[in-house]
Amino acid sequence: MNSKGNAVVAQSGGPTAAINSSACGVIQEAIKSGKIGRVIGATNGILGILQEDLFDISAEKPKTIEQLTQTPAAAIGSCRYKLKSLEESKADFERILDVFGAHNIRYFFYAGGNDSMDTADKVNKLAAESGYELVCIGIPKTVDNDLAFTDHCPGYGSVAKYVATCAAEAGRDTEALYTTDTCTILEVMGRNAGWIAAATGLASRRPEDAPHLIYMPESAFSFDKLVSDVKEVLKELGRVFIVAGEGLKDEKGEYVTADKGTFGKDSFGHIQLGGVAEMLKAVIEKEVGIKARFNKPGTNQRSAMHFASLTDVNEAYMCGQMAVKAALSGENGKMVTLVREQGPKYKCTTGLAELRDVANGEKKVPAEYINDKGNHITDAMRDYVKPLVRGEAPITIGEDGLPVFMRFERKRLEKKLPKYM
Amino acid sequence: MNSKGNAVVAQSGGPTAAINSSACGVIQEAIKSGKIGRVIGATNGILGILQEDLFDISAEKPKTIEQLTQTPAAAIGSCRYKLKSLEESKADFERILDVFGAHNIRYFFYAGGNDSMDTADKVNKLAAESGYELVCIGIPKTVDNDLAFTDHCPGYGSVAKYVATCAAEAGRDTEALYTTDTCTILEVMGRNAGWIAAATGLASRRPEDAPHLIYMPESAFSFDKLVSDVKEVLKELGRVFIVAGEGLKDEKGEYVTADKGTFGKDSFGHIQLGGVAEMLKAVIEKEVGIKARFNKPGTNQRSAMHFASLTDVNEAYMCGQMAVKAALSGENGKMVTLVREQGPKYKCTTGLAELRDVANGEKKVPAEYINDKGNHITDAMRDYVKPLVRGEAPITIGEDGLPVFMRFERKRLEKKLPKYM
Repeated sequence: MNSKGNAVVAQSGGPTAAINSSACGVIQEAIKSGKIGRVIGATNGILGILQEDLFDISAEKPKTIEQLTQTPAAAIGSCRYKLKSLEESKADFERILDVFGAHNIRYFFYAGGNDSMDTADKVNKLAAESGYELVCIGIPKTVDNDLAFTDHCPGYGSVAKYVATCAAEAGRDTEALYTTDTCTILEVMGRNAGWIAAATGLASRRPEDAPHLIYMPESAFSFDKLVSDVKEVLKELGRVFIVAGEGLKDEKGEYVTADKGTFGKDSFGHIQLGGVAEMLKAVIEKEVGIKARFNKPGTNQRSAMHFASLTDVNEAYMCGQMAVKAALSGENGKMVTLVREQGPKYKCTTGLAELRDVANGEKKVPAEYINDKGNHITDAMRDYVKPLVRGEAPITIGEDGLPVFMRFERKRLEKKLPKYM
Repeated sequence: MNSKGNAVVAQSGGPTAAINSSACGVIQEAIKSGKIGRVIGATNGILGILQEDLFDISAEKPKTIEQLTQTPAAAIGSCRYKLKSLEESKADFERILDVFGAHNIRYFFYAGGNDSMDTADKVNKLAAESGYELVCIGIPKTVDNDLAFTDHCPGYGSVAKYVATCAAEAGRDTEALYTTDTCTILEVMGRNAGWIAAATGLASRRPEDAPHLIYMPESAFSFDKLVSDVKEVLKELGRVFIVAGEGLKDEKGEYVTADKGTFGKDSFGHIQLGGVAEMLKAVIEKEVGIKARFNKPGTNQRSAMHFASLTDVNEAYMCGQMAVKAALSGENGKMVTLVREQGPKYKCTTGLAELRDVANGEKKVPAEYINDKGNHITDAMRDYVKPLVRGEAPITIGEDGLPVFMRFERKRLEKKLPKYM
């Protein structure tokens, strides 16, 4: 068995409800292929590789591996450790190859966003330069849905389904109690791209349905506009439900803060608030004179396994599976992509993109997905996102009424190298 | 048909995922009985009655009524309008009876908390004094679970299931990314009682499972204690997941604010923050030196129909149904209660309590449900809450992947009285 190269699976960045499904796809396909030695988990992503903190996934029970598809977050462990250029982070990159060499790791499957694809690409280059035989395949992962060269990203469909449902449900709450709680703000993730905020637009099937206003980083935001938008909705419906991406920007492309005096001179100079939702709440209460409250699901939106999209979880698995197939068929330095086929019925297959291209790309919500006023979505966005949120991923509920998740036993691999870091 | 008295159904206060099931129980049982004329909805609770803003629920499609059990919030409409004593709010109480008289309303079914039971009790007294034949039956409703004389309140089981799941899921997120995001705070509802916070304790099946610390209004909170609790958990696990009720109180029973200098003299004098979560985050970042983030589901927790407790929804329906049965069997001035039968297997039936007793009572989390350190729950609390969160209430999913909710057509009753308010 030792003649076959081993594979390492690593997870990076913010967790999602589907990243473990990708890991499951990699692990089950690698085992099934019979062509890969041991499947090794890197505890906490690239940190685990650098620190030689590895465990034997092949030794885990098949049922544990199976349950990955029902477990949110990143079961192998994630991190936000960022490597720079090959020159600046030379020691780190060399250490990675040393660890790979020490454990006969010949396949590197890395699920993450741009930065992770960049890291995988550089590891791959260095391996080639050093004559170390290695295959690096990336697997897309991000709730932000901002990776280029893929129609959408595993993880996005689930967060989209969840936040849209949050908007639909809390929208009914606001509708029921509008005589006192007239305005509700739902703050969702997405610092640079508004994909998550845009997805909530699905919930407004009719004009009276929440959300009534959606603000995304792609449209220039101003407090003047907010106040006039809110007043307009109030005149029509007597209540207003707003979705705001966490990274709203003004017409100069700078993050909006309440103390910038964007709305009138020094109008909000005294408002010192952390997040977008608090800021909008304060401005609306002061300038419109209605009570506003906010919901900020935070990490719950990206870990909502209990209402994850079946489409998303299945596609995430497929990406993991295809990563192994690509690696075994001679591909290298690529990321698996999701390809939406033309036609009225949704069909999604996979493709491959160069790691270096993905690393340098970024995909924002295109103008045709945003309405003219810059405060809601168009039907084109609805058509884009609808198939991605379809179906409910199966979960197992315990006798205590709560979902059951797996945890690895983590049989650690013996360290063979000196301590690092 | 006009010889039979009509019934009005009204909903009050903060919405829940189950209050519409209670309304469904009332409506279907009233129609089935054949003893009640028209079932009338009061748009936005007592406000609808005062303003004679009523609609004919009997004229709604049976399917719309059926779908109430799958719709969150308060489909008839709710409000927070508070009536005072019979003397202070005399005009309001008399107006209520005038409206009842104008529409031959002889049954008043009111779903709400203490204040609503108080209102129903007073309307009932005034009717008796005025010789107006009326039957008033209350239906318990509150996510806060703080009503006395009932084992638990419809609405609580669903919020409990949801927040416990949120803790389990976001707990895995923190576990995956602890090397950077070491601390997560989940702020839940419950200004005076810690029932919702306590329910999240269900998620910690094992010590490593979130939440690691739970703070409830029933235990005196201090920032000193918080900091030392956090450090202790960090030493053990390297991460910490905290649940905080929105209304934490210090040893004097006053709401904790960061500018009170509870932790060291003026230590937090400069921190001006709105909610408990922001406050805890700021203190932990400053005093423990780790990154903290917070999730605040807000109204999403009480409207989370997509993962509501089947037990809760069924019991809520039963309360509505029993309210009608009680009214028709000669009871008056009572609230339906939930009675947990003794024995190892959970069984719940209904009883009745005097409206005036319920109005004056309040049920907090008892000392035996809170651990000695005042920062988590005991097995007694687990045993109490577990049966309440069991089962998943059925929902209908649209072709767009999101839950489908009903809306009444609202055939308004013609106004017969002069305008009021």
